[in-house]
Amino acid sequence: MGTPTILSDLGTEIIIPVCAVVGILFSLFQWYLVSQVKLSLEKPAADDKNGFTEALIEEEEGINDHAVVQKCAEIQNAISEGATSFLFTEYQYVGIFMVIFAVIIFVFLGSVEGFSTSSKICTYDTTKMCKPALMTALFSTVSFLLGAITSVVSGFLGMKIATYANARTTLEARKGVGKAFIVAFRSGAVMGFLLAANGLLVLYITINLFKIYYGDDWEGLFESITGYGLGGSSMALFGRVAGGIYTKAADVGADLVGKVERNIPEDDPRNPAVIADNVGDNVGDIAGMGSDLFGSYAESSCAALVVASISSFGTTHDFTSMMYPLIVSSVGILVCLITTLFATDFFEVKTVKQIEPSLKNQLIISTVLMTIGIAIVSWIALPSSFTIFNFGAQKAVKNWQLFLCVCVGLWAGLIIGFVTEYYTSNAYSPVQDVADSCRTGAATNVIFGLALGYKSVIIPIFAIAVSIFVSFSFAAMYGVAVAALGMLSTIATGLAIDAYGPISDNAGGIAEMAGMSHRIRERTDALDAAGNTTAAIGKGFAIGSAALVSLALFGAFVSRAEITTVDVLTPKVFIGLLVGAMLPYWFSAMTMKSVGKAALKMVEEVRRQFNTIPGLMEGTAKPDYATCVKISTDASIKEMIPPGALVMLTPLIVGILFGVETLSGVLAGSLVSGVQIAISASNTGGAWDNAKKYIEAGVSDHAKSLGPKGSDPHKAAVIGDTVGDPLKDTSGPSLNILIKLMAVESLVFAPFFATHGGLLFKIF
Amino acid sequence: MGTPTILSDLGTEIIIPVCAVVGILFSLFQWYLVSQVKLSLEKPAADDKNGFTEALIEEEEGINDHAVVQKCAEIQNAISEGATSFLFTEYQYVGIFMVIFAVIIFVFLGSVEGFSTSSKICTYDTTKMCKPALMTALFSTVSFLLGAITSVVSGFLGMKIATYANARTTLEARKGVGKAFIVAFRSGAVMGFLLAANGLLVLYITINLFKIYYGDDWEGLFESITGYGLGGSSMALFGRVAGGIYTKAADVGADLVGKVERNIPEDDPRNPAVIADNVGDNVGDIAGMGSDLFGSYAESSCAALVVASISSFGTTHDFTSMMYPLIVSSVGILVCLITTLFATDFFEVKTVKQIEPSLKNQLIISTVLMTIGIAIVSWIALPSSFTIFNFGAQKAVKNWQLFLCVCVGLWAGLIIGFVTEYYTSNAYSPVQDVADSCRTGAATNVIFGLALGYKSVIIPIFAIAVSIFVSFSFAAMYGVAVAALGMLSTIATGLAIDAYGPISDNAGGIAEMAGMSHRIRERTDALDAAGNTTAAIGKGFAIGSAALVSLALFGAFVSRAEITTVDVLTPKVFIGLLVGAMLPYWFSAMTMKSVGKAALKMVEEVRRQFNTIPGLMEGTAKPDYATCVKISTDASIKEMIPPGALVMLTPLIVGILFGVETLSGVLAGSLVSGVQIAISASNTGGAWDNAKKYIEAGVSDHAKSLGPKGSDPHKAAVIGDTVGDPLKDTSGPSLNILIKLMAVESLVFAPFFATHGGLLFKIF
Repeated sequence: MGTPTILSDLGTEIIIPVCAVVGILFSLFQWYLVSQVKLSLEKPAADDKNGFTEALIEEEEGINDHAVVQKCAEIQNAISEGATSFLFTEYQYVGIFMVIFAVIIFVFLGSVEGFSTSSKICTYDTTKMCKPALMTALFSTVSFLLGAITSVVSGFLGMKIATYANARTTLEARKGVGKAFIVAFRSGAVMGFLLAANGLLVLYITINLFKIYYGDDWEGLFESITGYGLGGSSMALFGRVAGGIYTKAADVGADLVGKVERNIPEDDPRNPAVIADNVGDNVGDIAGMGSDLFGSYAESSCAALVVASISSFGTTHDFTSMMYPLIVSSVGILVCLITTLFATDFFEVKTVKQIEPSLKNQLIISTVLMTIGIAIVSWIALPSSFTIFNFGAQKAVKNWQLFLCVCVGLWAGLIIGFVTEYYTSNAYSPVQDVADSCRTGAATNVIFGLALGYKSVIIPIFAIAVSIFVSFSFAAMYGVAVAALGMLSTIATGLAIDAYGPISDNAGGIAEMAGMSHRIRERTDALDAAGNTTAAIGKGFAIGSAALVSLALFGAFVSRAEITTVDVLTPKVFIGLLVGAMLPYWFSAMTMKSVGKAALKMVEEVRRQFNTIPGLMEGTAKPDYATCVKISTDASIKEMIPPGALVMLTPLIVGILFGVETLSGVLAGSLVSGVQIAISASNTGGAWDNAKKYIEAGVSDHAKSLGPKGSDPHKAAVIGDTVGDPLKDTSGPSLNILIKLMAVESLVFAPFFATHGGLLFKIF
Repeated sequence: MGTPTILSDLGTEIIIPVCAVVGILFSLFQWYLVSQVKLSLEKPAADDKNGFTEALIEEEEGINDHAVVQKCAEIQNAISEGATSFLFTEYQYVGIFMVIFAVIIFVFLGSVEGFSTSSKICTYDTTKMCKPALMTALFSTVSFLLGAITSVVSGFLGMKIATYANARTTLEARKGVGKAFIVAFRSGAVMGFLLAANGLLVLYITINLFKIYYGDDWEGLFESITGYGLGGSSMALFGRVAGGIYTKAADVGADLVGKVERNIPEDDPRNPAVIADNVGDNVGDIAGMGSDLFGSYAESSCAALVVASISSFGTTHDFTSMMYPLIVSSVGILVCLITTLFATDFFEVKTVKQIEPSLKNQLIISTVLMTIGIAIVSWIALPSSFTIFNFGAQKAVKNWQLFLCVCVGLWAGLIIGFVTEYYTSNAYSPVQDVADSCRTGAATNVIFGLALGYKSVIIPIFAIAVSIFVSFSFAAMYGVAVAALGMLSTIATGLAIDAYGPISDNAGGIAEMAGMSHRIRERTDALDAAGNTTAAIGKGFAIGSAALVSLALFGAFVSRAEITTVDVLTPKVFIGLLVGAMLPYWFSAMTMKSVGKAALKMVEEVRRQFNTIPGLMEGTAKPDYATCVKISTDASIKEMIPPGALVMLTPLIVGILFGVETLSGVLAGSLVSGVQIAISASNTGGAWDNAKKYIEAGVSDHAKSLGPKGSDPHKAAVIGDTVGDPLKDTSGPSLNILIKLMAVESLVFAPFFATHGGLLFKIF
């Protein structure tokens, strides 16, 4: 049906890897530019461990360039070592999980046809023979492992780049805010492009390799590819949860003793938890975020591919059309490349005031350019009309409708970004109101902050609802999946501005620890304040896309589980919905309590060091950073297991005991409830943080009337900021993964649940 | 089909009004017993306005009995006047709303058949003729007004009783904790029985009056009766929201200046907001709660009746079976009557330690007795088998199945009560952990409290889910409705122990204000601490029953809107689900911000009075209580409108523009999301309050290590308590009504939406 695509299959086979390689080369080039900022002088920093101690303390007022560079290198080294050692510890535990879960996937999926090795009749096209379930189980397991490894590599590389860039940003801040901005932003771009291109390339290669076996059995091919999404997201879960607990245990612990009890500034080198705090930014906000967005990207691609395989694309063997999601992502890399040049080359950031607009322009430029890109791709890579599988029937779709589906997701992302900025930036009234409420103490600050978070949910939810309605109406679940891809098509830019935040945060920390001048600290603070807002925007994107991705996965799950309606008015589905809506609360209770417990341990250790190490407060003795790093590491590894188990086991238990209808309810319930908590938690936290920064910066008369640092309103603001920490960096962002992961896991195990699930109802 | 019922129709016509009258008489008798505690001496308190001032100040240490009695009477008078004046102001505004909404109901429902006055073919039994839609519109309007008025009267009477009893409880506390307990509990019982019996009687009389017109057109009769539930709940909405804002604006305002800034005790007569604070307890927790539970009761009865009318009960004109829900409630009154005697006559509370067990026993005794009661009613008032309407089909049901439906709701209520007690009483580890986290400051207290609230959702949700599954599986939406009635069947006892809380709270306030001795204050504090937990239990019941009621109403709405499935996998429904899940957040943002704003105004006024009235702090001058009362009144009336509009307009807008499918999604979404927030908000608040009380009471070594009053951990606990105030008393409890009210409103307007709704989709 329809006309053939303008782009030939050969063209598709060329364009995707070429774009991916261009992305990787661009990323390496940015890395090269960052590396031009030299950290080492005559001798490498690592050789000078001993000097670290003394320099740190003796040269508190240091302006001696040589010593400062050396100190920065040493601090960076300590942060990088801490982060690396944490990630390796995490990966050991996660590795065990991966192996066990790989076995589960293989056994469960293999059992669907009793481990038979003979071909079976295809599920959707019953005139054809498909590959045996056992082989699909095997390939699913392989793609699960590939996804997991790619996710781990993405997170790890992101962390490496960030810890490579933080000290360099600090050093460049000596030359001016513009120079520092460029370094931080380029480093973010390294991560963004590497991750986007890498994810695309691995997926592309996997598809091509699997095709050798599957031939034109697209159904089996893309069924097994869904393992890739599951692998990506399960790693992201542990990355987000463990990283989130790590970073906030250290942050809250450092603040409670340092800022509140001892009255020393943030990032003061006398604080024993300060290195752990800086390590945390890298493992939580960078590695965790990287894994998270990689997971979303992998899952939305998988969801689209699964649906495509059983639509007219698959039945007519139209390879180019099937690869439409990957081509959109490919073009996204090119668009982001051009967009990046606007920040780094076409315009120059010279003053503090230009930072936020420059980052905001990145969002606008990439969205506008991408709209053109999507139009072109939809024109050349799709037939003018085709059909999409829609819960048992085929639905006729035009190429311009699919263009609109992708666009609506893309633009919804922009709206979410803007709303997030409005509610979390201290340039607007919501955050200023929260700051103002600090006049009457911490209680009103917390009340106003919570109310702000709840309110900030409204517009993003409408934006997501409109995207869903448009894409769902035009092209069913395929439409929703490509809408998610639309939102994620500018992922390289999104990650660049997101990673920019923690890098700037670390840069500020290093400046403080290296005893650099107040002037430099002011510059890094300005970079960091903008970073808080971009971090919130990044989380907004992550949540928005997670909502769309989960729905697409949910739709794919329902199709694959061979149910055609999910009727709320059946008891099985309704109780699933109710319990599903509860899961984000259960999960948040676990993660918040974990942060609280880990922070209490940290507080005790920091207090112990202040009380028992003579001369620590006076700056004549060195704190024991390593013990604090170890506390955060141990606590986060230990505490990631229960919430991880909740997320990973729920679909299995519900599917096996209650069957696919109840599981559908659980997925829908956790999706619609989790999105709200995730958005409100991350915005509340961002707003509290920036309300505190607003008072500290004291730029306007209003802000001055609340300050300065140490005033009662400022103390109230610090309490709000501390409450917000686990909300915005641990429980909030982990909820994305909760909803996505349960959906993709259900999708992977759908054939198993459909065959062997619902035991309880079968027995009674 | 089936055998006729053992209980004849005449028996039914006798048993219901008799039980209602017995309840009212019992209530009056309790009132008589409470009134035996004399407040007036030679001359009535009201004559002595002038003495009030002087007595209050001059006799701070007063132990002179005569003067103390007089002072208590005067304070009580001030509280009662404040509450009455607030309620009258509220009713003026609400009256306007009632008139407007009555017109809307009449016009919208009348328009369904173009205001035709001729009979129509019945919707479900198409062989029969039913009364014209215009008459049903008229009767719906009448029953709406009746429900609204009954709700208003219930709330008002509750308030009157509570303000009548508070000072009497204080006075009895001089004789011992047991005497005071009896007075407070009896007063709660007055309210509980009056409300339960009154609600039942009005509903019964209305049905009998309407029957004169409708004859055996049960469908039309019970359709028009649903207006009763709508009227009840819309008043409850304004009562809860306005009352909640009132009480918390006063409480937070009084605490922020009094306890935090001026370091004077709670309820100190020097605090200008102290009368407003005490008024607030009566208008928020008593009048609001009364309206709320009355609304739940009315709605679940209506939902059950609507479904019954189109089941075999209706088609076979089996009046007794149709009245099953009312008979269950009637027996509930008798059961609660016996239960009450256990607390007031069979056993005597002698020590502080016996208070909590005595209240807890009330729950257990009433549940056990009611189980027997339900068994008897199900045996005599139901045929052994019958059919229930189940979304287009008739489902065969046995009488024992219906017995189980009611029981599962009843027992789920008990479980929710126990879980709530566990998470909010300071006798158990969760609250003690929260108290312990105050060591490291307010931030950890808030984090731990939020985590506790989230966690406390888990078991109640499972309990509700099991109830729904059992009742839904056995008897479709009728089962869910009677499960809700089961939970509410012990409403008289539930309300008694719930109202006991604010009465004790007020009693403590009066003791403090009247300058009574420390010993008496300790007794009232012990009563109050138990009251905090019972208040949380009451809220748990209210929320649990609201969830069941809403689902039953939702089911009735779907039946009446003539749709047979609500498929999540259609874009119309899914966006409804997503947006519906957002509404509780929007609503909470409004109410919490309102409390914050009103509290800020109160803070300014209290500060102004302390700064400008010479001698106020020293106790030589009298504060201006009236201005604070006025601020709370004005703020709450003004602030109740936007959240009220959100709830009342959403079903209308969604139904008219998007149609019944999207509205179904909205109802399901707000239900599953709202329940979670409501439970977590009210438990978090209760836990913070009791964590503070735990530190203050200092009973255990652990508690002593955190105290005493004024220590840093105690200050942190006060901040948590203040944050919890709007959560537990404003936004949390109002959410019950949000979910119920949207459902009942949709039900009432269902024929209109089905005929004229979905304009947007009709246009595009």
